[in-house]
Amino acid sequence: MSASPSVSYSITVRLEAPSYGNAVSGITRVVEDAGGVVTGLDVSGSSRDRLRVDVTIAASSEEHARAVTEALGKIEGVEVGRVSDRTFLMHLGGKIEMRSKVALRNRDELSMAYTPGVARVSLALAENPDDARRLTIKRNTVAVVTDGSAVLGLGNIGPIAALPVMEGKAALFKQFAGVDAWPLCLDTQDTEEIIRVVKAIAPGFAGINLEDISAPRCFEIERRLREELDIPVFHDDQHGTAIVVLAALTNALKVVGKKLGDVRIVGSGAGAAGTAILRLLIAAGASDITVADYHGVVHRERDDLDRDPELRWVAEHTNPGNLTGTLKEALAGADVFIGVSAPHILTGDDIATMAPGAIVFALANPEPEVDPDEALRHAAVVATGRSDYPNQINNVLAFPGVFRGLIDAQSNHITPEVLVAAARAIASTVGDSDLNPSYIVPSVFHRDLAKTVAEAVVEAVKGA
Amino acid sequence: MSASPSVSYSITVRLEAPSYGNAVSGITRVVEDAGGVVTGLDVSGSSRDRLRVDVTIAASSEEHARAVTEALGKIEGVEVGRVSDRTFLMHLGGKIEMRSKVALRNRDELSMAYTPGVARVSLALAENPDDARRLTIKRNTVAVVTDGSAVLGLGNIGPIAALPVMEGKAALFKQFAGVDAWPLCLDTQDTEEIIRVVKAIAPGFAGINLEDISAPRCFEIERRLREELDIPVFHDDQHGTAIVVLAALTNALKVVGKKLGDVRIVGSGAGAAGTAILRLLIAAGASDITVADYHGVVHRERDDLDRDPELRWVAEHTNPGNLTGTLKEALAGADVFIGVSAPHILTGDDIATMAPGAIVFALANPEPEVDPDEALRHAAVVATGRSDYPNQINNVLAFPGVFRGLIDAQSNHITPEVLVAAARAIASTVGDSDLNPSYIVPSVFHRDLAKTVAEAVVEAVKGA
Repeated sequence: MSASPSVSYSITVRLEAPSYGNAVSGITRVVEDAGGVVTGLDVSGSSRDRLRVDVTIAASSEEHARAVTEALGKIEGVEVGRVSDRTFLMHLGGKIEMRSKVALRNRDELSMAYTPGVARVSLALAENPDDARRLTIKRNTVAVVTDGSAVLGLGNIGPIAALPVMEGKAALFKQFAGVDAWPLCLDTQDTEEIIRVVKAIAPGFAGINLEDISAPRCFEIERRLREELDIPVFHDDQHGTAIVVLAALTNALKVVGKKLGDVRIVGSGAGAAGTAILRLLIAAGASDITVADYHGVVHRERDDLDRDPELRWVAEHTNPGNLTGTLKEALAGADVFIGVSAPHILTGDDIATMAPGAIVFALANPEPEVDPDEALRHAAVVATGRSDYPNQINNVLAFPGVFRGLIDAQSNHITPEVLVAAARAIASTVGDSDLNPSYIVPSVFHRDLAKTVAEAVVEAVKGA
Repeated sequence: MSASPSVSYSITVRLEAPSYGNAVSGITRVVEDAGGVVTGLDVSGSSRDRLRVDVTIAASSEEHARAVTEALGKIEGVEVGRVSDRTFLMHLGGKIEMRSKVALRNRDELSMAYTPGVARVSLALAENPDDARRLTIKRNTVAVVTDGSAVLGLGNIGPIAALPVMEGKAALFKQFAGVDAWPLCLDTQDTEEIIRVVKAIAPGFAGINLEDISAPRCFEIERRLREELDIPVFHDDQHGTAIVVLAALTNALKVVGKKLGDVRIVGSGAGAAGTAILRLLIAAGASDITVADYHGVVHRERDDLDRDPELRWVAEHTNPGNLTGTLKEALAGADVFIGVSAPHILTGDDIATMAPGAIVFALANPEPEVDPDEALRHAAVVATGRSDYPNQINNVLAFPGVFRGLIDAQSNHITPEVLVAAARAIASTVGDSDLNPSYIVPSVFHRDLAKTVAEAVVEAVKGA
């Protein structure tokens, strides 16, 4: 697996170049020789002898981008001016904003949206608080809450550094499901403090999306908030991942012609995502799952179960064959591998020991447990979390539609049945004639996806 | 002072009426006879014999609106259909929304706004948190925070009922100063809890606007948050009101030809707004202020000063003449009256006892301390908080520009000098040729107002 040029390392370089005929093609050739990809080229100005050229280039890392820029500077007659990083440019001033939905152009409009007219609405709500679902942003708004303790693959970078990720999450809520969302990056990592803060801000929200909060605190926080609030609380790193994994697995099993209840599944990682995936697979009918963590296979005789109730739960509900030993040993002959753990812990040879028609989900981010190209030489279906391979297991497939459904149903009952229904809805959007080993989940841009998921969630809530 | 028809009691009534010639004028006449005002009339459909007419009517209360609707129903041949309340209609689903500022139409855009590109921005912020001012919504976003304990003139209606007011506040921030704002309505009224919650959510915000939190807790909350946060914290009910009062008074004194240091000022109300007004007037150069509260004039021999440090401060910094007794007694011969207290506590006769060229600011909301029409028979300049009289003392004149300036200056030093500078900026937007007894403050829709205030605040912060 090589690091390909990627738009997330995209720069725009402003150059002054001579105006003779082949200057521009010379620029493109130098970029390509240096391993970059020209994704855009714009002659933005000229004089008699000189051209001003804005070249947009995808590089494979920040270092590579610098190297490509240096190479451009070495072209005879070319001067390199400003270099803009497109990713950083996009972030200037933040990626989201708040807007008024009502016009405020004159006194009349002000008198209805604000004083004195708004007092009538407040009085009505004081008498009937349930009407907030109709008359305020509580109709449609989710808080995206983090403490910055487990952000993407970056670890504990804190609330300020987490903010761009949370802004992005909010933008995705609105883009894909029309759910308004505002990020709250908390300056505390104390479990009780976080619970108190979320309870305090809850009145103006229809739901709480917990994000990037590390295990094991995330379990307690979600559990307690679900007990103490009347709005849905959903830790996306747990349940969003689990929903999409189940959806992908449902379709992958169709591809290889196996049933969930018959397959032996081996998992790597018993943190937030791993535990949630496990619980959901069991709820969906899986009966033979074995999980390995940093210390090897989780089995009932391990001596670290006492300190960790989640791990004890894992030990008690998995590993029917009472395997001990390493991940690699457990993997031999397995039908399915699901990794939410660490990079480069398996090789192609390990995948080769799996059963025929093997399904491999290597979801460690940004570097998977096994090189996907290596895995593909031996497995039937391979999925990762990466956007540069097919079958991207992306939580964006789940959380917008799930929250849309929970909000519309005005329900905070997030049972395994509701999550399974969401997973089945996602899987169902890949029609039988579209299904193949490289297409087991829909594109995140699939037009009706969030709507389909939302409707399934509303149905499941009603039935519960 | 009568209750006039107002757009904040505006209804739209759908009628079926006969299609002969004078049916429509008959509708208008009936509305006017019943004391309403037709502000819009739309024939929205027709058949051979019948018209469908949507009539928009301003009434003076909900009861009046019902009476007018009943009167319409009594017109021969007219059937009343649906009645929509425009104020409530405007509030359906809330008045604000969140939007993405960046396009998310394809994988490239997703890879820069979200994973994997966003990870680079997060890493950069982990190394250099100050860059959050440049790369995130911390550049431009204010939290509007309330506990619903003192909402408008409605009192302690709680966080949910407060939400429409806070949504409106946020909409005004964006409309008038381009400041993004999100409401946080807190489910707690405990001082320490509120302080902890605001500190916890602070990382993603450039400023905190405290709103509708009752005295005396609001003083402690603002004071402690100013000590413990590095972003500006501003309780608008205190300082916004004070700024606009000072601006209005500055211009009113110009109109009557007096100086701030020479006039005797009598105030009614020693709560949040009253105390803040007092402090700001003293900072601006006022030297003879006497304040009355519910128990009469505040003087140094009162026996309730020990329990209330704010009241003790008032007693020690006002009333140089050591007046005792009632508000009415103190008012005789005064140059200026500023009321932020309760309705109907003074009459025209009381105003008549004031000095010539009297200035009366009767700001109790929604019913002022004295009938403005009565006051105008004796005073030179009268101002209220009402939108149906000239000289509306409206905080909207101050808070957008003040926060715009504080955010742009990246300063949390909110000194009296900064507030005085804001007040002077507001006053200055009324040019000498425009100034008259009925125009002492600009319209809230004055085009450059927020900009002028913001620039004055930035200058004042630099000088501080």
